[in-house]
Amino acid sequence: MTAYDDLMAFQRETEALAQVAGRLGWDQETVMPRGAGPQRAEEHAAMAGILHARRTDPRIGDWLAASVPADAVAERQLALIRRDFDRAARVPARLASEIARTTSTAHGIWAEARAREDVASFLPILERVLQLRREEADCLRGEGSRYDAMLNDYEDGASAARMGEMFDGLRPRLVALRDAIRQAGPAPALEGTFPEEGQLKLSTELAKAFGYDMTRGRIDRAVHPFSSGSGLDVRITTRSDPLDPFNCFYSTIHEVGHAAYEQGIDETHLLTPLGQGVSMGVHESQSRIYENQLGRSRAFTGWLYGRMIETFGDLGLDGPDAFFAAVNRVGEGHIRTESDEVQYNLHVLLRFDLERALFADDLRVGDLEAAWNDRFAADFGYPVDRPSHGLLQDVHWSEGLFGYFPTYTLGNVYAGCLHAALRADLPDLDAALARGDTAPATGWLREKVQRHGGLRPPRETIVHATGAAPSEGPLLDYLEAKFGAIYGL
Amino acid sequence: MTAYDDLMAFQRETEALAQVAGRLGWDQETVMPRGAGPQRAEEHAAMAGILHARRTDPRIGDWLAASVPADAVAERQLALIRRDFDRAARVPARLASEIARTTSTAHGIWAEARAREDVASFLPILERVLQLRREEADCLRGEGSRYDAMLNDYEDGASAARMGEMFDGLRPRLVALRDAIRQAGPAPALEGTFPEEGQLKLSTELAKAFGYDMTRGRIDRAVHPFSSGSGLDVRITTRSDPLDPFNCFYSTIHEVGHAAYEQGIDETHLLTPLGQGVSMGVHESQSRIYENQLGRSRAFTGWLYGRMIETFGDLGLDGPDAFFAAVNRVGEGHIRTESDEVQYNLHVLLRFDLERALFADDLRVGDLEAAWNDRFAADFGYPVDRPSHGLLQDVHWSEGLFGYFPTYTLGNVYAGCLHAALRADLPDLDAALARGDTAPATGWLREKVQRHGGLRPPRETIVHATGAAPSEGPLLDYLEAKFGAIYGL
Repeated sequence: MTAYDDLMAFQRETEALAQVAGRLGWDQETVMPRGAGPQRAEEHAAMAGILHARRTDPRIGDWLAASVPADAVAERQLALIRRDFDRAARVPARLASEIARTTSTAHGIWAEARAREDVASFLPILERVLQLRREEADCLRGEGSRYDAMLNDYEDGASAARMGEMFDGLRPRLVALRDAIRQAGPAPALEGTFPEEGQLKLSTELAKAFGYDMTRGRIDRAVHPFSSGSGLDVRITTRSDPLDPFNCFYSTIHEVGHAAYEQGIDETHLLTPLGQGVSMGVHESQSRIYENQLGRSRAFTGWLYGRMIETFGDLGLDGPDAFFAAVNRVGEGHIRTESDEVQYNLHVLLRFDLERALFADDLRVGDLEAAWNDRFAADFGYPVDRPSHGLLQDVHWSEGLFGYFPTYTLGNVYAGCLHAALRADLPDLDAALARGDTAPATGWLREKVQRHGGLRPPRETIVHATGAAPSEGPLLDYLEAKFGAIYGL
Repeated sequence: MTAYDDLMAFQRETEALAQVAGRLGWDQETVMPRGAGPQRAEEHAAMAGILHARRTDPRIGDWLAASVPADAVAERQLALIRRDFDRAARVPARLASEIARTTSTAHGIWAEARAREDVASFLPILERVLQLRREEADCLRGEGSRYDAMLNDYEDGASAARMGEMFDGLRPRLVALRDAIRQAGPAPALEGTFPEEGQLKLSTELAKAFGYDMTRGRIDRAVHPFSSGSGLDVRITTRSDPLDPFNCFYSTIHEVGHAAYEQGIDETHLLTPLGQGVSMGVHESQSRIYENQLGRSRAFTGWLYGRMIETFGDLGLDGPDAFFAAVNRVGEGHIRTESDEVQYNLHVLLRFDLERALFADDLRVGDLEAAWNDRFAADFGYPVDRPSHGLLQDVHWSEGLFGYFPTYTLGNVYAGCLHAALRADLPDLDAALARGDTAPATGWLREKVQRHGGLRPPRETIVHATGAAPSEGPLLDYLEAKFGAIYGL
């Protein structure tokens, strides 16, 4: 056994334990009895303590120093282990464990507060979560800002400054597009009631149509849909609302995008640092291209239109073009995850700026709801009507996931780049999508992106797949063309 | 912080991790995607390695030496920690991890073999499991036999010799009772088809009727029903067969007995060594008294008879006495878990003797199926018709649980003792049971047995509850009276 072999064997056990810890989160969101919360918080904390101890084990430093990589893959494995080792060594075990315990508790309080529309009951624990994350950021930041330290957790090499520039490039054309759409008047809307059983059945059919492997996954229901796990056990969740079947379908397709990335990674990388998606941004590029550029395309919605009529009967819409317009309707909504492609990034911008302000001490938690509501009214043109449509809508902050939101927009930008390259390589794609056949597109993504897992850093992953440096241009071009056609702009 | 406080804090984290590891088993049996097996084996092994490392942490020895117990409870906590520490220190980490990995694999192979009625495909891995357990027993045995070492894992202080004596006391009267029943001719049987949806609904109603707290538990389906977890998250599973609703109902009540023990323990003992059932034998006394002495009593079956008619319509039985006889029918069956109260212990005796022979080198794995089938034909009077009705019927050996079976009969003996004491204390019990009200009985058991968890050693637990030393007499008296009445002996 060489030092490298020892290191990789140790790492493999750590990855297996991380899968166990992750599945504990899945369990909590899907099947956990509601009275189990206090015990579960201790279980989470104990697992976090174990993982932290392993990730800071001094032997890793020795093994890293003594390892001689045999090839580029081994070199990349070592780089990823070194990055995590350096990061983990900076955060005291006490703090890591306290964060796990507090966010587990905060999660339950958030869910209660959201159900009761009661912001005040959530703020004290949010304040505590924020304080702990700031403490953590101080351990990690080095020369950068606290918020940069948070961002880097999800996107290696990202900075708030570069994010800000990208959003500057997006904002004017998005706002102009949104204004033009508003002036064009409303698109057709889907109305009526759609039995949840039928929704969930069709949702499973969609998951399979997009290549989700049910022998290595499963679909359950959760308040906030998510994908969980890597390797041979990658589970997704969805939700249903009798009045809004698109929410169910596109939540599912979105999570299938995430899951397909994890399921698509070459099995040689199983339970190694390369055996999972390389970053949140690249992950989101997969979920968004599945959901939007493929799932909400005119071609695919034509097929879905037929399946919906077979499932639910007449939809009261004037043919597949009207259905396509209804799927992509730009309306007045408050919920990020239900937002159309045009306004979605405005949601992300709002959270990004509030997070930056919180971390820069420009905003206090006590003023957060007012800041959210003011900004929302200014950006969207209508007010927040209740906390579950505003500050309490997302699970992220209760889990301490500051710096996570901007990766959603980064993912959209990457999805735009990938989509342009994919269309160039697959001129007949629409014919397949019109038959409900996503295999050419998902096969391209698997080959170009998914199978490589963490082999290349995030930005290089996109460069490798598209042959060009990522920019916001392709996303904007795509949005203007698509919504220009729908709204006759 | 005193040494005792440090020890208990460390122990609490270990207990939390053990809950996580246990829930991994629940997940595997209920919701795990079938392709996840190889990865799951690594996850199990990693968790087992972590737990083993904690249980053998040298600091435990130091803390134990420096701890001064403040009271009898603290003294008992220390005794239980010391026992596990001494045990774990004897088993090398490599062996513990290898056992976890091998039994996880063996479990899948067993399930496949059972489905395909293919003993040969199971024997090589069973041989390996047995070999590993024998290796483990050699680490543990000290002056005792290998098999005693196995027994003591489930029942502190048990020995094969004492077990053998107890079975000697049981066997003649059980065989005589069984012969008399056979000569009396068959009892009425339930016939027909019972929709599984209705079974599962009534099964949940039964679980609640027996006091199962669904806010701290849940019911799922599994091939082999089990109860899993301690404290605030205690889950049970059941199964259903359209032709055999009693299997579903009494599996559920049985597992509720186990779960009620875990749920009933005083919350001050949460995540401490006292916070779980003290032994397999005492655990089984709870599941069996719920299932048999209460659930299969004339009084309770009278209530169940009404609920079944309301659920399924006419049962084709001539009133509640015939229903009572059908519930308790002594028939020709092969499956231990479906066996009546009279023949059940013969099943256990068979396994006990085969296990002893395997551990004493008097029997080879290659000869195990023949030995099983010969013994079965001799004891039961009819042959094993297929492997899933014989050697492959139980999950236990695939999981390496040698020495576990005899605790079932020990549990029956304890249940007999508890039932006699409970009846003496609650003369009006039958009136409540006839209304489907188990609260007087389950309240008595909670107060006398369950709430104390691991406070007293197994045998002392029964002595404390009943005021007398346990013996097989009360069980035999109960069986002879009950089945004498049903069969008119």
